[in-house]
Amino acid sequence: MYQLGGKTVHNETYDMAIVGCGPAGLSAAVNAHIRRKNLALFGVKFCAPKLFRSPWIDNYLGFPHIKGEELRERFLNHVQEMGISITRDRVDAVYQENGSFSLQVSGRIYRARTVIIATGVEQVKLLPGEEPLVGKGVSYCATCDGPLYKGKTVAMVSYTQDGEEEVKFLAEMCTLVYYIPQYDEAPDTIPGVTVIKQKPKRILGEDTVSGLELEDRQLTVEGVFIERESVPAGQLVPGINMNGNYIQVDREQATNIPGLYAAGDCTGKPFQLAKAVGEGQVAALNAVKYLDA
Amino acid sequence: MYQLGGKTVHNETYDMAIVGCGPAGLSAAVNAHIRRKNLALFGVKFCAPKLFRSPWIDNYLGFPHIKGEELRERFLNHVQEMGISITRDRVDAVYQENGSFSLQVSGRIYRARTVIIATGVEQVKLLPGEEPLVGKGVSYCATCDGPLYKGKTVAMVSYTQDGEEEVKFLAEMCTLVYYIPQYDEAPDTIPGVTVIKQKPKRILGEDTVSGLELEDRQLTVEGVFIERESVPAGQLVPGINMNGNYIQVDREQATNIPGLYAAGDCTGKPFQLAKAVGEGQVAALNAVKYLDA
Repeated sequence: MYQLGGKTVHNETYDMAIVGCGPAGLSAAVNAHIRRKNLALFGVKFCAPKLFRSPWIDNYLGFPHIKGEELRERFLNHVQEMGISITRDRVDAVYQENGSFSLQVSGRIYRARTVIIATGVEQVKLLPGEEPLVGKGVSYCATCDGPLYKGKTVAMVSYTQDGEEEVKFLAEMCTLVYYIPQYDEAPDTIPGVTVIKQKPKRILGEDTVSGLELEDRQLTVEGVFIERESVPAGQLVPGINMNGNYIQVDREQATNIPGLYAAGDCTGKPFQLAKAVGEGQVAALNAVKYLDA
Repeated sequence: MYQLGGKTVHNETYDMAIVGCGPAGLSAAVNAHIRRKNLALFGVKFCAPKLFRSPWIDNYLGFPHIKGEELRERFLNHVQEMGISITRDRVDAVYQENGSFSLQVSGRIYRARTVIIATGVEQVKLLPGEEPLVGKGVSYCATCDGPLYKGKTVAMVSYTQDGEEEVKFLAEMCTLVYYIPQYDEAPDTIPGVTVIKQKPKRILGEDTVSGLELEDRQLTVEGVFIERESVPAGQLVPGINMNGNYIQVDREQATNIPGLYAAGDCTGKPFQLAKAVGEGQVAALNAVKYLDA
């Protein structure tokens, strides 16, 4: 490991980085592992919440009638028995660089020769103005991009409690920091931060962010940080081709970026278990083929 | 049921006919059944022989290390527990007709509004001259096409014992019938049939079949019947678009023929279980969408 611009960089370049620990990501990991590839598997704190919440699954061949909770346990045990570990951190961004990839993961940087995106689908409604201003003042990672806003005014819209830690980090370097929590039981005050409990209406700005519109006022800010459970697929990888809200892939699960594959719900409907598991396998095997070419 | 041209026609029109009882076909059946579609599932005598022969499977998520034989049992039990039965007959041809399909199945005809082809892949090497002469003297079904050759000379190349029954049927109506068995322990004589134990080299003919070349001689025939364990995918459905030896499908598992889907090994590599199960699901759910549109 070494430090670069305040970030820890891992020396190791993995053969494959898999982003997501739902059925597609786990299936990709199992297949890559069997093909003896050196992989990093990233997952948020709780893998496959949709599966966990399914009372009964009847259409995953081999298990005629099984509780979602139990099948999820079996999936996780499968990767565990193979000795595959899950790095419990959110991937904030994936960049191409000299024919390989670098992944921003909570302030650390991982490198990999191929990447499989299996982040599922969240029914997230982006804020008006959010998408056109990504990278132009809209950021999903305070740890990554915070230093760029030293001495400036920023706002953070947070849909999860994790935002509380992140916003404190911003407060250390920015002149003025607004926190706009969108979850229950958010604190009324945070030291060094102005907490405003209102709904965000729109991110303002032409070429770069100039403000954030709330219910009864408008904040003048140069940056808007957004904290969600996961980064929307289209925002995770700059330059990736989308089909509406889904990552565009071909029959090999390949995206428009060589070496980058996607599998599961993030590639579109039907949002189903067997589809995700099958696509994870196909993505991994094609990534292996790409590595071995 | 009623009779038409010597064939039994089933009155019922199924919502969906699924051809093949490997992982893709079984997964399609399970999904269509859950969506309350009226389905016919066709399988040869022994479903999923490749799975049966796999000593251990490690990459089907949920079963870390399982014998192929055991997983096959579980798959078959899954459809059985749902009350889905497998019609143990080989489908010889699938024809489009007025927006639905008719399937020739051992001399009977079934009708269905949608069809899923999940016949797997056999490492079959077609005979030289075979493909261009399909429907022009080359046939895969004596019961279906035999009557067209009344009073003529034909040959049957058979890779399975089933050919012995079929060739006797041909002998009842054709003037001269050659039988060219390609399996062990074939009989030396069959009443009314000329048995020749040689390898077929080439099917001859320009616009229609004119002969069959063997190792040391050339037979003058107007028809060549070929009996294999299964009919090659491209020959099963006239007009279907192929990618080399595989059925061409899009991300929805749709072929170029509306209402006709394909899943599993017959759509191409990788030849893997999870891929087949996932594709069977996607094919079935898209066929359901097509039916409900």
